[in-house]
Amino acid sequence: MLDIKIEKTTNPKPIPGPEDPLVFGTIFTDHMYVMEYCPEKGWHDPAIMPYQPISLAPSAMVFHYGQEMFEGLKAYKTEDGRILLFRPDKNAERANNSNRRLMIPEIDPEDFINAVKTIVEVDQAWIPTKPGTSLYVRPFVIATDPFLGVRPSNTYKFIIILSPVGAYYPEGLNPVKIWIEDKYVRAVRGGIGEAKTGGNYVASLAAQIKAHDEGYSQVLWLDGVERKYIEEVGAMNIFFKINGTVVTPVLNGSILPGVTRDTCIALCKEWGLPVEERRVSVEELEAAAKDGSLEEVWGTGTAAVISPVGHLRYEDDVFQIGDGGIGQISQKLYDTVTGIQLGKVEDKYGWTVEVK
Amino acid sequence: MLDIKIEKTTNPKPIPGPEDPLVFGTIFTDHMYVMEYCPEKGWHDPAIMPYQPISLAPSAMVFHYGQEMFEGLKAYKTEDGRILLFRPDKNAERANNSNRRLMIPEIDPEDFINAVKTIVEVDQAWIPTKPGTSLYVRPFVIATDPFLGVRPSNTYKFIIILSPVGAYYPEGLNPVKIWIEDKYVRAVRGGIGEAKTGGNYVASLAAQIKAHDEGYSQVLWLDGVERKYIEEVGAMNIFFKINGTVVTPVLNGSILPGVTRDTCIALCKEWGLPVEERRVSVEELEAAAKDGSLEEVWGTGTAAVISPVGHLRYEDDVFQIGDGGIGQISQKLYDTVTGIQLGKVEDKYGWTVEVK
Repeated sequence: MLDIKIEKTTNPKPIPGPEDPLVFGTIFTDHMYVMEYCPEKGWHDPAIMPYQPISLAPSAMVFHYGQEMFEGLKAYKTEDGRILLFRPDKNAERANNSNRRLMIPEIDPEDFINAVKTIVEVDQAWIPTKPGTSLYVRPFVIATDPFLGVRPSNTYKFIIILSPVGAYYPEGLNPVKIWIEDKYVRAVRGGIGEAKTGGNYVASLAAQIKAHDEGYSQVLWLDGVERKYIEEVGAMNIFFKINGTVVTPVLNGSILPGVTRDTCIALCKEWGLPVEERRVSVEELEAAAKDGSLEEVWGTGTAAVISPVGHLRYEDDVFQIGDGGIGQISQKLYDTVTGIQLGKVEDKYGWTVEVK
Repeated sequence: MLDIKIEKTTNPKPIPGPEDPLVFGTIFTDHMYVMEYCPEKGWHDPAIMPYQPISLAPSAMVFHYGQEMFEGLKAYKTEDGRILLFRPDKNAERANNSNRRLMIPEIDPEDFINAVKTIVEVDQAWIPTKPGTSLYVRPFVIATDPFLGVRPSNTYKFIIILSPVGAYYPEGLNPVKIWIEDKYVRAVRGGIGEAKTGGNYVASLAAQIKAHDEGYSQVLWLDGVERKYIEEVGAMNIFFKINGTVVTPVLNGSILPGVTRDTCIALCKEWGLPVEERRVSVEELEAAAKDGSLEEVWGTGTAAVISPVGHLRYEDDVFQIGDGGIGQISQKLYDTVTGIQLGKVEDKYGWTVEVK
């Protein structure tokens, strides 16, 4: 494991107080982590330094060819003052899955986790404690060769920044309305859909704006081949409770393998609910909504944790899910996941990792 | 049209001489063009300034969500000292097609073309004149909001940089070997394949490396739905001459609408060759290669202009095209396109635009 050089700021910023609004992704802490890559040295010289602009040549490959990878996880402060991360090993593993697909050199998972722990420790005073808040951790890699032409970069930066956050959606835990998109496609098998990379998100914007304009918070994507099987929501995986069974689209190569998705599957199984990872067609959902067997729908993601879905729209049909309110399993999952994350609920699976 | 403020460098770099190798995309000129966007002012304050690093917050959206667009065109110096651009109106138009798909604010085509003309004029001493060389012009837009979360950015930079270049492929006009990819997919209808944006290029890297390792220069992509129809090559569109007819895949939403593609279609029609823009299956190509009716294959793109294809590989079959050398139409297209670009061949279509 590489030693991290630490240079603390001499000019700290004011830390938001409990009454300050924490609009997601807008406030950043005093420090950042940066590690460089070149072919001769591999990943080297990790350092924590004051949060500062990045200076890159205008020809830096990240600006032109989209070679960029990101991750997202959260740090929490427990009532007894401990700092907990939630399943950072899963983020380290997924980062490397993304890196391989994007031809970015892999990062030793020990260095990844140590980097997250160390930067969170340095900026621990920024972890908010009000219910529903946390310190969002954003590790990312960018390609930095000053070169025009299509090939993998030879040099990279791995950076971690931190942002104290409240709810990802303005709705909080209130049910969102979701638009099932039938024109635009986010990703396709054989593409980069299972990698966490900018190209998948920019592809989602046009449909997202269209959905917003129609009064919907998020887009639910269909597969790019047949345009009939459910894939995922904008920034979340999606779950359905149909006739007592929890169903979520199987990971097929074009769906992001979410950490919260994996967590919810484990918890539902523990609670004795049948869980099926399989293809789910929009026709099946429509039929289930019509005959009343579609009991609950919720999204899962690090940013939003659990986001209940109250309404689905597909073409000209709008379906209300249950009574349009928060479903029982959605609420239980939210309480349990955030309970474990905050150290209030027993962590049977060893998911939380303490920052000393 | 906006006025461009010009600040010239006081510290010019040495300009490569005729004997210096011009490896594509590695050398940049003395100046760059930058224009900013914010919702209040729109695109504003265009300026030419010394070539310099870009300084961005580590939270700048371009690093995370891939909201970036680029273009590519070339400037040439004629034997009588005039400076010519080739069809910059097509780049301005395509830039806005990409911008719309990527939810980036459109740029007035007049400002786009004026920006290209002005920066090329400022750095005209950098236009190389040796055969096969030119000044590559790279306009691009990046999203600059310091924000984590999936939505279009509110602020952008439009930048133009210049690079004196030689051949894009080390092969020059020698025929390249091309790998037809059956596992990875570049883009799919409904996605971002017809926008010129980083996400499409990063998606291509893994297959490109695999093809290189097998001794092939470039990847030929199949459609993402049926995996049987030809789409495009890594950085080029593709043409086939089958039984005297010129065939190229029809623009279907997942193919980049190339300027050189459009140029070649016009020229082939002018020369009385039948031209078909339609779906082309890999089976059709295989059959044509076997019965000898596949007479020529070539790629078209701004960077490479015309790149003859000598061999195609699909799964375990390798097909030689003609005698594996440069085809007659490929050579004629190369001579005519570069002739027009250099002012040596009559420009019947008004494709060239002079920089005064």
